[in-house]
Amino acid sequence: MQPHATHAPDFDAVLTAAARIAPHVHATPVLHARTLNAIAGCELHFKCENLQRSGSFKFRGACNAVFSLTNAEAARGVVTQSSGNHGGAIALACRIRGIPATVVVPRNASRAKLAAMEAYGARIVFSEASQASRDETTATVLDETGGVLVHPFNDARVIAGQGTAALELVRHSPGIDALIAPVSGGGLLSGSALAAHGNDPAIEVFGAEPEGARDAHDSLRLGERVTGRTADTVCDGLRAELGTLTFPIVSEHVRDILLVDDAQVIAAMRLLWERMKLVVEPSAAVPLAVVLANPARFAGRRVGIILSGGNVDLDALPALFAMAPRPS
Amino acid sequence: MQPHATHAPDFDAVLTAAARIAPHVHATPVLHARTLNAIAGCELHFKCENLQRSGSFKFRGACNAVFSLTNAEAARGVVTQSSGNHGGAIALACRIRGIPATVVVPRNASRAKLAAMEAYGARIVFSEASQASRDETTATVLDETGGVLVHPFNDARVIAGQGTAALELVRHSPGIDALIAPVSGGGLLSGSALAAHGNDPAIEVFGAEPEGARDAHDSLRLGERVTGRTADTVCDGLRAELGTLTFPIVSEHVRDILLVDDAQVIAAMRLLWERMKLVVEPSAAVPLAVVLANPARFAGRRVGIILSGGNVDLDALPALFAMAPRPS
Repeated sequence: MQPHATHAPDFDAVLTAAARIAPHVHATPVLHARTLNAIAGCELHFKCENLQRSGSFKFRGACNAVFSLTNAEAARGVVTQSSGNHGGAIALACRIRGIPATVVVPRNASRAKLAAMEAYGARIVFSEASQASRDETTATVLDETGGVLVHPFNDARVIAGQGTAALELVRHSPGIDALIAPVSGGGLLSGSALAAHGNDPAIEVFGAEPEGARDAHDSLRLGERVTGRTADTVCDGLRAELGTLTFPIVSEHVRDILLVDDAQVIAAMRLLWERMKLVVEPSAAVPLAVVLANPARFAGRRVGIILSGGNVDLDALPALFAMAPRPS
Repeated sequence: MQPHATHAPDFDAVLTAAARIAPHVHATPVLHARTLNAIAGCELHFKCENLQRSGSFKFRGACNAVFSLTNAEAARGVVTQSSGNHGGAIALACRIRGIPATVVVPRNASRAKLAAMEAYGARIVFSEASQASRDETTATVLDETGGVLVHPFNDARVIAGQGTAALELVRHSPGIDALIAPVSGGGLLSGSALAAHGNDPAIEVFGAEPEGARDAHDSLRLGERVTGRTADTVCDGLRAELGTLTFPIVSEHVRDILLVDDAQVIAAMRLLWERMKLVVEPSAAVPLAVVLANPARFAGRRVGIILSGGNVDLDALPALFAMAPRPS
């Protein structure tokens, strides 16, 4: 699947996106918990994109892409591939604009996320799990429909849209000196970095990545994109690799990518459920896990965190929590 | 345990409480979800007291009581009895004021709620589960310490404090024409009714009660307090009976008490977790369950709901959800 909008986005693109999507997105709350601050040794500002429409920040980028289309483009519909939140977000954005959405979904996608795409009225086309099969099926659907491809992250419209969450956060909580977002394909992280540095170039921006999907960490160290690995992590939203558009932005703006293992992620997720009373998915807990694993780096600072999403199958919870038993 | 502050509170008392506790409480967000509105057939405004400090609305009443004390009274400390959220709330309010708190707790109290009281620095004194044993132990502690009793609901300062959540809600969401709060001892419901009717006497105020603890429903029908029953419900926050102070306020201000069974409560709780991404305890889901069980009554209306708390033991979730299997 090739990117559609290939010009690199900038801070102005984030501002444009913010104005474009304002009628459709929730200005999600920024929440705090003193007990978590005490545990972390710093001041945490959580931007609650789990409370965003469709249950994740992905709705911002999807909205910006879908509402950027001309009427002629839009009429042919939008095509994407996703096993998760991006598909649901595109489905909802297209329903709001009143145009068709087709999502190419690997057969092993989670039932809960598939149900969300269907509930928002998307047409689902199944492929095999391999990237080759997903790309082939996507190309076939594009041929058949003449629709517009909206890539989950390697798309300037999507990157700019994802940056609007961080834009709201740094405006809401002045003085934030560190910002942490999970990193997968890099759409959220690169958009967040553009938004943060457009407001204040001194903000240190970090990516938070699971050990089992550490391509972004290694790409930054190597200075070139690491690709072709197989991800192994409980964070089902963080299994993609940096794209051609997102890697340069991450390289320029991101101070470091910090790694944590799955048990640390689930322990942080449990803290967010218990102390913040927020339903977040594992991927959304990676930044807090990073803070807890690097106390010296964040001690006493004002730290912004993007809580990226809340789409988790409640029936899977006991298995998740079993990965990080509570101290007794 | 007899009430300490026995004068009936009024709307002015709610206003006074709001100003008194403002430095200490969170002005919790009011959240919405279009998908839930579509399911319910009305416009739902959720006041998120699960995001309140100590994890429930109880912190408002506790703060108002604790910060109403003179320095001389406060110095002797506060005594209360609680198996749950009120104990944690009193513990936190006393820690903030810097005075001792003692909570008389029945031996069968939940581990999670006990841990919260201890974490906030309260002294725990165990009693047997019977009300007689709890009262006897409380009297002994009061004798020993010379402390001030703050009853969980039958206390004018507590009632006024609990009303501040509804005050914030009706001011945040003008035009609400129905307000629903869970009812147990009636502190939240009577305070909410005072707050709502102080703003707009036309607002219909409803109590939401589990079938297995329907004393408030029956008391309203009979015109006198029903007491001495044994509650049987999964809603561990709703097992008390109306008090001498709360019953007259409920009788005057509340349009009706609506009943739902435990399976309906857990199904509504699951919706709040899945659609709102909010961790709420069973007791907090009773108002939504009531809306879903009475569609004609609320159709097309603007309905305010107090999400009363979020203190639930995550390890107990599978057992809770098993009570209301999802439709397959």
